[in-house]
Amino acid sequence: MPKKGNLMSFRPDIKVLDATLRDGGLVNDFYFTDEFVKDIYKANIDAGVDYMEFGYRADKDLFDEDKFGKWKFATDDDIREVVGDNDTSLKLSIMADVGRCNYKRDIHPKNESPVDLIRVACYIHQIPAAIAMIEDAHNKGYETTCNIMAITNAQRSDLADALEMLGETPVNGIYIVDSYGALFPEQVREITDLYMESAEKNGKYIGMHAHNNQQLAFANTIESCAQGASYLDATYSSMGRGAGNCSMELLMAFLKNPKYSIFPVLKFVEKHMVPLVQDPNVLWGYDIPYLLTGHLNQHPRTAIAATGEHRTDYINFYKELIDKD
Amino acid sequence: MPKKGNLMSFRPDIKVLDATLRDGGLVNDFYFTDEFVKDIYKANIDAGVDYMEFGYRADKDLFDEDKFGKWKFATDDDIREVVGDNDTSLKLSIMADVGRCNYKRDIHPKNESPVDLIRVACYIHQIPAAIAMIEDAHNKGYETTCNIMAITNAQRSDLADALEMLGETPVNGIYIVDSYGALFPEQVREITDLYMESAEKNGKYIGMHAHNNQQLAFANTIESCAQGASYLDATYSSMGRGAGNCSMELLMAFLKNPKYSIFPVLKFVEKHMVPLVQDPNVLWGYDIPYLLTGHLNQHPRTAIAATGEHRTDYINFYKELIDKD
Repeated sequence: MPKKGNLMSFRPDIKVLDATLRDGGLVNDFYFTDEFVKDIYKANIDAGVDYMEFGYRADKDLFDEDKFGKWKFATDDDIREVVGDNDTSLKLSIMADVGRCNYKRDIHPKNESPVDLIRVACYIHQIPAAIAMIEDAHNKGYETTCNIMAITNAQRSDLADALEMLGETPVNGIYIVDSYGALFPEQVREITDLYMESAEKNGKYIGMHAHNNQQLAFANTIESCAQGASYLDATYSSMGRGAGNCSMELLMAFLKNPKYSIFPVLKFVEKHMVPLVQDPNVLWGYDIPYLLTGHLNQHPRTAIAATGEHRTDYINFYKELIDKD
Repeated sequence: MPKKGNLMSFRPDIKVLDATLRDGGLVNDFYFTDEFVKDIYKANIDAGVDYMEFGYRADKDLFDEDKFGKWKFATDDDIREVVGDNDTSLKLSIMADVGRCNYKRDIHPKNESPVDLIRVACYIHQIPAAIAMIEDAHNKGYETTCNIMAITNAQRSDLADALEMLGETPVNGIYIVDSYGALFPEQVREITDLYMESAEKNGKYIGMHAHNNQQLAFANTIESCAQGASYLDATYSSMGRGAGNCSMELLMAFLKNPKYSIFPVLKFVEKHMVPLVQDPNVLWGYDIPYLLTGHLNQHPRTAIAATGEHRTDYINFYKELIDKD
C-alpha cells in the first residue's frame, strides 16, 4: 500500500486523541484532581487536539466505586461537570471494555450525553461481543471504534477475520493496539497495511494506540500514520499503563498541520505532569522490566509489580519471565 | 534500495559498537571508575559486542588533563592497563576529532597499540582534514571510519560530495551521525539509501549513530539497519550527551544473531548504571528540553544547560530557543 503524504505535508484526515485520563488512569486508579481534568480539557482545546478520552465507563456492579476515582466510570454527569455542553471543537470519547461495561444500562442515547465517540475495547476472541456493543452505541447515535487489544498475541488469520466482520458493521474506525509494546516499526507498517486494505474497502478509518516498552511508541505511531492510519492516540508525558504511550509532546512537535500547537501541551506538562512524575506512588514510563515484557510479548503486569517494588535485579526478573514463558 | 533481511533473519555483517565510555564520557567528563571500565569491557566480551570505544584521543595541549578523566585522552597505555593484549573477540576503537587530536604525534603505529579502529569525527566542512587523518591512520595499520556529524545541518549535495570523496579513500566505513536527534525514521531510511548507494559502489560499510531527543534513537538505528547499515552504535542505558543514544539493552534484545546476549548487559546495568542514573551530577536521557532542540534541529547545548539547572519552565525555554533560531 503506498505511503500517505510525506514529512512536509499535512493530512487533514489525521485526528489526535488524548488518552491521558483513560490510559493514565490505569496508573493512579483514576484519581485525578478536578483541576487536572479541567486544565487538560482546556489544554486539548487550545492545542487543537481532536478527541479527549475521559476514561472508562466501567460497570459499578463489577468495580467498587470506593476503590477508584470517578474517571474509571466516566459518567455523563461527571463529564458534564467539566465540559458543560462542550461547545468547542474538541470531541469527547469514553472507552467501554467488553465484559466490563453494562452498556445497555450505562450508555445513554447520544442526545442525552456530552460524549461523541464510544471506543469499544476487546480481545480478538471477543469480537462478536464487541460488535453487539458497537451496534448498540451506533443505534444510540454515537461514533464508534473497535480497539482490538494485544494483537501481537492474535493469529494473523483471526485478525483478518475480525477485520472482515467489523467491515460489515457500522463501526467508524478500527484501532491497532500494541498492548504489550512488542511491535517494531517494520511490523507496524505491515499490520497497518493489513488494516488499511480492509478499511479502504469498507469505508472505515484506522487508528494507532502504542505502548513504549521498547521506546517505540512514538516511532510506531508516526510509522503507522505514514502508512495511512489517521487516528493517533497520545498521552501527556506518555502517562499510561506500564511503559506508557506515545507522548503528546512528541506527536504535537511532529505533526505539520498548523491547527496543532505544542505550547498548550508544554504549559500543561509544566504545571501538572512535572509534579506527577515526581509522585512516588504514580509510576509509569520506559524501564528495563517493561523492555523485557515487551521483548517477550507478555502482559506488562509482572513489570508493573517489579517497578512498583523498585526492583533493579534485572537478571532475576528476566529469569522469572522466561520461566513463565 | 531493497531492505536487507527481515525480523526473523540475522545478518552476519552486523557489528555492534559500544560507545558508552566515549559518548557517555561527555556526560561525566570521562570520570569513570577503573572498576566500571573493567566491568564494561568484560560485559562487552560476554555479550558478543563487536567493538568497544574507549574514548577520545584528545590533544593534551588543547585540553587540560586535570579537568577530564583519562578516557578523554584514551592513551594506548591506559587502554592496555584494562585489556592487556586484548586476546579476545572484542575489537577496540577510539574516536579522533578533526582539530582536537594531534594524530601525527598521538596515534602510534597499530603494532604498538591495542586499538583496532580509529573513528574520525568531523563536520561536513572538515572532510578534507578528516581524509588526511584517515589516510594517516590507515597507513599506520588501523581500520578507519569517518563519522560525519550533525548531518541534519548539511546540504544533501554536500553530503553526496563528501561520500564521493570518502569513496576514493581507504576508509572502511562511513557513519550516519544524527548529532541533534532531529531525524525521523522516514528520513533515516532515505539517508541510509544515499549512503548505501555510495558504500556499495566503493566497498565501504555504513554505520548509524543516533541520539534520543525524540525517543527515536533505537527506532532510527534499527530502521537504518534494515536499509543496510551494519555498524550500530549503542550505549549502556543510553548513556550519552544530552538525550543519550540508542540503548544497548534494546539493541541486544532486538538482534537475532545468537552470538549476542542481553544477560551480561543487564548484569552490568544492574551493577553500574542503576547507581549512575541516580547520581545527581551525571545527567542524560530523554527530557522535554532535548525534544525541543531536536525538533528545532539545534545543538543540544542549551538543553544540557537547562536540564543541569533542573529547569521545568518549558514554555520559557522554548521561547528562548525560537528567539535564537
